[in-house]
Amino acid sequence: MFDGKLISVEVVEGRYREIVHHPGACAAVPLVGDDVLLVRQFRDAVGETLLEVPAGVRDVEGEAVADCAAREVLEETGYRVTHIEPLGSVLTSPGFTDERIDLFLARVEPDPEHDAEDEVEVVRMPLAEAGQAVLDGRIRDSKSAVGIVLAAARDP
Amino acid sequence: MFDGKLISVEVVEGRYREIVHHPGACAAVPLVGDDVLLVRQFRDAVGETLLEVPAGVRDVEGEAVADCAAREVLEETGYRVTHIEPLGSVLTSPGFTDERIDLFLARVEPDPEHDAEDEVEVVRMPLAEAGQAVLDGRIRDSKSAVGIVLAAARDP
Repeated sequence: MFDGKLISVEVVEGRYREIVHHPGACAAVPLVGDDVLLVRQFRDAVGETLLEVPAGVRDVEGEAVADCAAREVLEETGYRVTHIEPLGSVLTSPGFTDERIDLFLARVEPDPEHDAEDEVEVVRMPLAEAGQAVLDGRIRDSKSAVGIVLAAARDP
Repeated sequence: MFDGKLISVEVVEGRYREIVHHPGACAAVPLVGDDVLLVRQFRDAVGETLLEVPAGVRDVEGEAVADCAAREVLEETGYRVTHIEPLGSVLTSPGFTDERIDLFLARVEPDPEHDAEDEVEVVRMPLAEAGQAVLDGRIRDSKSAVGIVLAAARDP
């Protein structure tokens, strides 16, 4: 067994693989008109700079998951959420981890009182272009790919 | 640090979260005409029975990733691959793990000499229906959702 700050590892007798327990996460596809706000950041786990939707670990005790998603949008983009609705959820890798990411569609507007986090670059593009970026491999993060596909199917 | 059979955990000084190292995996969207072959299996990590595309961990030393995907299709469905092409890859959860799943589109046909694994139920459905299952939440496994979306965009 291993017990870390984020994850813990369970070793199951007779099972070939370990199970990694994860607290879960929230993510939102933030829309300004027909545009989506993405974030570009270096991910040291994979050693690459990735284009993703705003997201975060569910690490605030008792926080509703939609509030978690709205908070992450504000923190990472500097835009505040005016409407939010659930899109579903994604199980990132159910062969080895219980991580579930709850996905939301958010309508957002600039919040003049809030600056985005410095370490995150915000990239604005038409939602249709983001959908194309999923298809051509520019967006490879699973929650972002699924969230964009679900948002494009939902958005009129 | 934790060193398991499948994964290992790296604790980085000054970093809030652990990094989980994973050997990577392969997955294929196997098509018979306009139908896709999915597998339904219980995943103890999440405690649910899920609908997924055939996939497996890259645990055979020196095996090409396309061969890994073709082998998994045969083992899990009993169908053999007659054509295989890369669709791209997905990073399942780059905030905490380096796991990458390479995705393939496979054309398959029944292999009379091979039975599918007993513990895996094969579900055949039109690819378009599988795409709808991604949108309505019946398919929540990330590699399967992304693979089906990419295959539907590729398949004429």
